[in-house]
Amino acid sequence: MIKIAVDAMGGDYGLNTTVKAAMDAVKKFDDIEIVLYGDEVKINELLTCKERITIHPTEDVLDMGEEDPIRAVRSKRNTASLCVAMQDAKNKLVDAVVTSGPTQCVVVGAHILIRRLPEVERIALCPIIPSIDGRAKLLLDVGANVELRPEHIDLLATFATIVAKEVLGYENPRVGLLNIGSEPGKGRPVDKETFEVLSANKNINFYGNVEGNDVITTPIEIIINDGFTTNVCMKAIEGTAKAMGVMLKEEIKRNIWGKIGYIFMRKNLARFKKRMDSSEVGGAMILGIPVPVIKAHGNSDSFAFYNAIRQAREMVKKDVINHVRKAIEKEAE
Amino acid sequence: MIKIAVDAMGGDYGLNTTVKAAMDAVKKFDDIEIVLYGDEVKINELLTCKERITIHPTEDVLDMGEEDPIRAVRSKRNTASLCVAMQDAKNKLVDAVVTSGPTQCVVVGAHILIRRLPEVERIALCPIIPSIDGRAKLLLDVGANVELRPEHIDLLATFATIVAKEVLGYENPRVGLLNIGSEPGKGRPVDKETFEVLSANKNINFYGNVEGNDVITTPIEIIINDGFTTNVCMKAIEGTAKAMGVMLKEEIKRNIWGKIGYIFMRKNLARFKKRMDSSEVGGAMILGIPVPVIKAHGNSDSFAFYNAIRQAREMVKKDVINHVRKAIEKEAE
Repeated sequence: MIKIAVDAMGGDYGLNTTVKAAMDAVKKFDDIEIVLYGDEVKINELLTCKERITIHPTEDVLDMGEEDPIRAVRSKRNTASLCVAMQDAKNKLVDAVVTSGPTQCVVVGAHILIRRLPEVERIALCPIIPSIDGRAKLLLDVGANVELRPEHIDLLATFATIVAKEVLGYENPRVGLLNIGSEPGKGRPVDKETFEVLSANKNINFYGNVEGNDVITTPIEIIINDGFTTNVCMKAIEGTAKAMGVMLKEEIKRNIWGKIGYIFMRKNLARFKKRMDSSEVGGAMILGIPVPVIKAHGNSDSFAFYNAIRQAREMVKKDVINHVRKAIEKEAE
Repeated sequence: MIKIAVDAMGGDYGLNTTVKAAMDAVKKFDDIEIVLYGDEVKINELLTCKERITIHPTEDVLDMGEEDPIRAVRSKRNTASLCVAMQDAKNKLVDAVVTSGPTQCVVVGAHILIRRLPEVERIALCPIIPSIDGRAKLLLDVGANVELRPEHIDLLATFATIVAKEVLGYENPRVGLLNIGSEPGKGRPVDKETFEVLSANKNINFYGNVEGNDVITTPIEIIINDGFTTNVCMKAIEGTAKAMGVMLKEEIKRNIWGKIGYIFMRKNLARFKKRMDSSEVGGAMILGIPVPVIKAHGNSDSFAFYNAIRQAREMVKKDVINHVRKAIEKEAE
């Protein structure tokens, strides 16, 4: 039985999404049990089916707008739902953690409460991003480290490769370095060095450089660079997609012709919207720690949160962490 | 009379767009004359009106796919259309240069053939990008320097502020630092330092940090960071906009309902497309050199190229370069 810790209090919609998602997940997968961390009374009000679901009562929460994540995680380490779940993960009482809590608190909690694998040197935040061809891909590090040395990126690329194989099901996933030109020799000194290091990594299938405009369209399965560059890139994609959605809606509503046209192509436009929507794919993973931690989007609905639970199950079931440790060990020999 | 050098040979469509754009520009503005640099015979075939247009014959061109821009600019400094135009700009024979040639060659040419202003320390590539609210904004440096020190960004922010005032007509344009969080104290050590330096710059109206997802939607008029981060961000926006256009088209064409709906909202969708299109706005400017150089998009049509000429005229007419020099001088006192 796979035991998944769910931070019931996180996210913009809190209990309304997490409890339903947990019930849906245990109904779907008979090999999981879920521990809900949070307000016992409120959870009980919403928990209409307790099969393979238990509650771990906690008194506090991490605020979604928390401005000092380090202080928050330290001071609430024994009280906040996410912190208690992470401590239980550290102590091997649960096999994975799923939360839609504040991103930087999740990263800090992974650091302070779970602690990284000794082999990996840096942890990374790695979302699954949508792609024009519908194939999910990994983008990292989107914000756990503002700077990364080539050797850190190297180990994270190995980690992501195994996740792409085991969780996304790609046979031989390619790794692309996010850069400002496609040819070798492009970028900052650190990028040129990273290019060399990744070229020599036998655990990965290094493709070369990938530019910002190709992130959405490239068939390359893993795109990597430091947590500053990649964060800006990911947010630029999100912001543009959102802005274009707003503009499209404005133009359609502008006059009667748009409104009539909309009646005919309503379903087509819904499919268009869905293709850029990441809720189907799952949450961001924290790579580099000994326990799978999935960070669902803060505004996750219960379906998106359910998918994050599914993803956590997959990571435990496929024993991703041990695969990574073995690969790194083998490479080091 | 404002004398504008036009590289007639650059861009994906070459003479077919540049010659027509030049004729349209002199027709529109009676205070400019244009010198077309390129193949005299071919230009003459297309030049149906020679009023205030002369030809400076050149024998060679810079290839759009040029892989070694430094070598290309050096070896063709006296033969390629863009290089000869830039040398004439250096020697004050023309007041501005407009080209849709290969970006890196334009940057290198600005460096080697025109040379930067002694006050500015670094040159920057600064496109005008589209915005959800229709107000043009400046994004820099999108690729002239992979790394920039805070003091370089500081001077470039002053430069961009004057361009935003004089060319875009903003009274008190704000400057935002492209960063991974909106609060002060975010980013890499260099970003934190840049934040402090920009806060102290009296020539600019510093707003604070701007995140990747806000670049398109923020009302902030100038967004700045190094040429690595900003290049990735700009390309991510371009790539996402393009990919979404493709997906929308695919979904509309998928069935008869989409096609019928399209008949009704054809004009609405055309307006939507236009709002993300940068051809109306103009080209990217090279900031930091003593002569306005406008780099139009490689795939510019003649309207986009005409707009780049219009922009060059504006920069000369408003005496942007001298305004910048005075502002920097005053700040240094």
